[in-house]
Amino acid sequence: HQYRYLALKWALALVVGVGTATTAFLINLMVENLAGLKFSWTIQAMASSSAGAYFLYMIFNVLLVASSACIVTYFAPQATGSGIPEVKCYLNGIDLPGILLFRTLVGKVVGSVGSVAGGLAVGKEGPLVHTGSCIAALLSQGGSKRVHLSPKWFREFNNDRDRRDLVTCGACAGVAAAFRAPVGGVLFAIEEAASFWRPQLTWRTFFTTAVVSVTIRALMNACKGESDCGFFGGGGFIIFDINDGQSEYWIYELLPVLILGTLGGLLGSSFNYVNGKLTQWRIKYLYKNHHSSRRHVKVIEAMLVAFITSTFQFCLPLAFSCRECDPDIATCPRPAGVHYGNFVKFTCPGDNQYNDLATIFFNTQDDAIRNLLSSEMEQEYSPTALVTFFCFFFVLAVITYGISVPSGLFVPSILCGAAYGRLVGMLMTSITGNAEIKEGTYALLGAASFIAGAMRMTVSMCVIILELTNNLSLLPLVMFVLLVSKAVADLTGILPIYDLHIHIKKIPLLEHSSERYFRHLSASDAKSKTCVQFGRVEKVGFILDVLKSHTHNGFPVVEAHPTDRVTNETSTLLGIVLRNHLLVVLKKKISFMKDPSEVVDPVLAFQYDLTEFTKPISSQGVKLDEIRLTDEEQNMYVDLKQFVNTSTYAVQEDMSLAKVYQLFRGLGLRHLCVVPKATGVLGVITRKDIVPEHVEAQYPEVKHLSRTNS
Amino acid sequence: HQYRYLALKWALALVVGVGTATTAFLINLMVENLAGLKFSWTIQAMASSSAGAYFLYMIFNVLLVASSACIVTYFAPQATGSGIPEVKCYLNGIDLPGILLFRTLVGKVVGSVGSVAGGLAVGKEGPLVHTGSCIAALLSQGGSKRVHLSPKWFREFNNDRDRRDLVTCGACAGVAAAFRAPVGGVLFAIEEAASFWRPQLTWRTFFTTAVVSVTIRALMNACKGESDCGFFGGGGFIIFDINDGQSEYWIYELLPVLILGTLGGLLGSSFNYVNGKLTQWRIKYLYKNHHSSRRHVKVIEAMLVAFITSTFQFCLPLAFSCRECDPDIATCPRPAGVHYGNFVKFTCPGDNQYNDLATIFFNTQDDAIRNLLSSEMEQEYSPTALVTFFCFFFVLAVITYGISVPSGLFVPSILCGAAYGRLVGMLMTSITGNAEIKEGTYALLGAASFIAGAMRMTVSMCVIILELTNNLSLLPLVMFVLLVSKAVADLTGILPIYDLHIHIKKIPLLEHSSERYFRHLSASDAKSKTCVQFGRVEKVGFILDVLKSHTHNGFPVVEAHPTDRVTNETSTLLGIVLRNHLLVVLKKKISFMKDPSEVVDPVLAFQYDLTEFTKPISSQGVKLDEIRLTDEEQNMYVDLKQFVNTSTYAVQEDMSLAKVYQLFRGLGLRHLCVVPKATGVLGVITRKDIVPEHVEAQYPEVKHLSRTNS
Repeated sequence: HQYRYLALKWALALVVGVGTATTAFLINLMVENLAGLKFSWTIQAMASSSAGAYFLYMIFNVLLVASSACIVTYFAPQATGSGIPEVKCYLNGIDLPGILLFRTLVGKVVGSVGSVAGGLAVGKEGPLVHTGSCIAALLSQGGSKRVHLSPKWFREFNNDRDRRDLVTCGACAGVAAAFRAPVGGVLFAIEEAASFWRPQLTWRTFFTTAVVSVTIRALMNACKGESDCGFFGGGGFIIFDINDGQSEYWIYELLPVLILGTLGGLLGSSFNYVNGKLTQWRIKYLYKNHHSSRRHVKVIEAMLVAFITSTFQFCLPLAFSCRECDPDIATCPRPAGVHYGNFVKFTCPGDNQYNDLATIFFNTQDDAIRNLLSSEMEQEYSPTALVTFFCFFFVLAVITYGISVPSGLFVPSILCGAAYGRLVGMLMTSITGNAEIKEGTYALLGAASFIAGAMRMTVSMCVIILELTNNLSLLPLVMFVLLVSKAVADLTGILPIYDLHIHIKKIPLLEHSSERYFRHLSASDAKSKTCVQFGRVEKVGFILDVLKSHTHNGFPVVEAHPTDRVTNETSTLLGIVLRNHLLVVLKKKISFMKDPSEVVDPVLAFQYDLTEFTKPISSQGVKLDEIRLTDEEQNMYVDLKQFVNTSTYAVQEDMSLAKVYQLFRGLGLRHLCVVPKATGVLGVITRKDIVPEHVEAQYPEVKHLSRTNS
Repeated sequence: HQYRYLALKWALALVVGVGTATTAFLINLMVENLAGLKFSWTIQAMASSSAGAYFLYMIFNVLLVASSACIVTYFAPQATGSGIPEVKCYLNGIDLPGILLFRTLVGKVVGSVGSVAGGLAVGKEGPLVHTGSCIAALLSQGGSKRVHLSPKWFREFNNDRDRRDLVTCGACAGVAAAFRAPVGGVLFAIEEAASFWRPQLTWRTFFTTAVVSVTIRALMNACKGESDCGFFGGGGFIIFDINDGQSEYWIYELLPVLILGTLGGLLGSSFNYVNGKLTQWRIKYLYKNHHSSRRHVKVIEAMLVAFITSTFQFCLPLAFSCRECDPDIATCPRPAGVHYGNFVKFTCPGDNQYNDLATIFFNTQDDAIRNLLSSEMEQEYSPTALVTFFCFFFVLAVITYGISVPSGLFVPSILCGAAYGRLVGMLMTSITGNAEIKEGTYALLGAASFIAGAMRMTVSMCVIILELTNNLSLLPLVMFVLLVSKAVADLTGILPIYDLHIHIKKIPLLEHSSERYFRHLSASDAKSKTCVQFGRVEKVGFILDVLKSHTHNGFPVVEAHPTDRVTNETSTLLGIVLRNHLLVVLKKKISFMKDPSEVVDPVLAFQYDLTEFTKPISSQGVKLDEIRLTDEEQNMYVDLKQFVNTSTYAVQEDMSLAKVYQLFRGLGLRHLCVVPKATGVLGVITRKDIVPEHVEAQYPEVKHLSRTNS
């Protein structure tokens, strides 16, 4: 039995890895093919007329983005945005409705293809984290009851902890698939996503990410031939082309790296600040109308952003003059008929010319990253092109994150950072004259600095960069730039972008440690003003009224009959009953009784199918308006003791709020009873008392019940 | 103020990194020089007489080991063994006496040099983890009071959490220094050492390990010249020489890898089993005598083991015939005058011959690893040599781990595993005839399998191997072998070696999750049989008596005067007072009073220097026999309220023991009061109630006290 459970756990981790990798591959395949088609048509049209090409390009983009916005707005509203904040909240213990549904998964995948192929300033990396988590959540649910695919051995997996563990694996798999960085994926979860970490999880998540990397490698090998996967060929999957970057560093490079770090911290946090203000404005003014018209506004907004983006991408490079190719580089300009790569010819007349702004702007995002980080040719970009690109792309990224499409932040952050990084690199090469110093390496450092400033990711970013570049000698520089950038961004007092959005949505995410002034408050300061509680035996109608008039998720139950109404002096606390469980009890009319003095044997409670009480992840559970009770039933009674969680944590009224916070955070609690000061003390438990050997020696009769958890 | 604190935290992490790296470098330097001298003299002596050389070699080894055993036994008893179990216990919240003292650090460093240079079957990697932790603990202590180096700003760092964090950094630094694997170091702490992990810590530990790798690189560069660092030259610092290993793998290789994994699981756990039995036998019979004679036994035992080891190392290769060199390999046999490297000539007469067993046995451990993992020459070793080496080295490793010297387990595990791994590799090359399959790669996989079997380290081992070999294509094979080996070893039911030793020493380390049968017990089942408690105002003599007769570390205090002796019905629980604090109160005679009805204003308590109450890590704190009280003082009273921790966690008597365990483990508690069932409930706290914004809005007056923790 135990081995079956263990095997199932690992098998599910394997399936999550394979599933996430395959999904990531399919997304990439579709994006590359759609974008390839778009650029291929546009370039053909450009031969006859620039205006016609612009319209073709723009319409293509607007349609793709509109399809993405429609599916997200009308079908899967939870698929909007990056998804990382939502996953973070779920792993913190907050059950946001609908974020891990099957329809969210579909919306995320299809929407992501539309928004990325449509040329928006978004990436597909963030959404992949959400995608992986959705796949994991759906697997952990133990099949689907609706399609009768729910064998019993599969259902036992359906508990909160196992589900949370598997979702963590899914999140890791997403990052690993996005960057092909197995170790980086695990560290991402440890640093950014997960609130609780168990050592056993490290190994399982790493297994998942390794499966991802093996699967992706196999799938990409299958696409090796030129025409096997359409336009996919050499595109897809961000790979920083930095193998030709510098392999040594000099002490004086610490100064430009310090500057880059400061720039990254300031620009990253101003990105957050502006985007936060914009999001608040959107909620307050743009989306203030009622439901259906708000949805139309969202789609129109997305199409408008797509229009602006396309216009910038096409028209700005027109204003730039062409640059001469280095004759040593065979692929300059990019040969006709190839739709990805460096040195985009665009409208340049000469055979040996390329348009530097078009190379990074009129291209897929992945290609633009590779081109910006490339060290193939120094002075590839004019400073004007880089500055123009940065300014416009920054604005586009700010307005795009928050519209109703799936949108990752890694790619825009990398592009913004790489632009000013390359500028600093150009300065460095011209000042020092050191041929070993590469602009591409500085672009990479710039990208790292912007990510550290906006998202405050450090370890995982550092490891992802190491894994991508395979260049351990860069470690000190990367680390220094991340350190400075995060410190500067923290000093500004602006929250990291994900936390900012969690904050704007007023989700009660608990950070690891409480504010210091919590020490000066006590539990009774924080407790709810009114205490809604049930007696042990309650009238069904009263329970229904309480559920209707209060939104609490748990209610304390005290030992008291409805005949003698609750008085704090005489009644002892039995425990907490959950709202979900009460809803199930009322809906299924479980053990209603006529006479309040009947007492139900608690053992009877176990005759019910306990899975009835488990809230499925794919639906909202029982809703209040599903409950139909006759007047007669409303006058019946129910003995709540059988549904109460008797082992509920309770704190005394004078407990410091800082310790209450620790309790919530450390154990992932959702509610806690505040009780009066204890009358006396029965004993003390020390560590020695709860070491398994000691307990076994004292209570040998329970040992046969032993079954280790791992 | 806050920034100074933050800056101090990072500065200390930097110093820990530099300190650990420098110490590791010095240990390596000394080991290589001592061992180099030893081999150089022995080889010179061999020219005249084998017997003379043997005696020289043996005496050198026995003397080195004796010096190590003496310093550990007589001066620093806590420096024995690997140190990883002790660090793990400290990070789990158990305060083992003396493990992080300065004298332990000295003993560890000097002892490690002696035991490794003395040729014992031990490594210097495990002790480095302990060394790093000691350095961190000493720094975190806020200077030394004894040498008056304790400025006030430095002392504020002296609290449990900051100290634990810094010790975690130290442990990471140790692993990073041992294997030159910065990411592996961080993952080692997450997987193996730390019980509590905060996301902020990830970044700080990674910073430390990066500092370590930069420092070591710089120090090794300083030794680049031939004669700069004596015999150190090309030696020191394990570097798996696997760059010439295979870069591809075939599906059919999964079978031998499966076999390797199974072998590793079985052999690793039998290593644990035999070593565990031996350790218990040692405690029961060998060390049963009283203090001073036990110490002599320990030193003699270590010298005996050194004698046996040296004899095997010198005499076994004599029984083996010489093998012919591959003429393509210039360094075969190892040139005369070089004291490290592959293809040891030993007693071989021919100019083109080497002794295969001597190459791995009569060499430093680091060299032996490099030689076993080398793919320079296939069929370098005869199967007999590998089998002989494995059998004897396994026995040596079993008897050595547990004697009174600092002894790491990584190196013996790697050597054992690499021996049978290479055997399997030889089989594979001869069966498949595939020239791409390398014996050295199989040796590496074997090493990984033995480590996973004995220590059950997986993620960190995998990442360390990836970092050392710089070969990401090996990932699937390494992962598969680790997975199988850990699963097989877990199935045997034998504990991992570190946990086994913790278990034998009866240390109450709390694993992450409790046994399943804990659910069937309640808090009152586990609580101490007798409840020793104090009233609010107690007689000094009574407190002293209780401290003398009970070893508890904390005592509950209830609101009651000594005049009306404690009755559970009427007295409310005030909190817990710590043994250490009571000892300080009694020693310093703080606020003793004649009249029990006097009540001390709790604010007065803060007039005492609070650092008086902090137990320094470098000493045992106040001891009972340091307290001198006159009869008159014994008859005085003390109001305990001012020393009580009023925010103590308490659970109701019927709380399930599984939840109690979670509370201990999740919050790192040391004791917990069990109280009667609460009379009524005052309110409920939900997540929303303790989100900082909500609290701030309700209690704006405390906001000015805000100071974030990070």
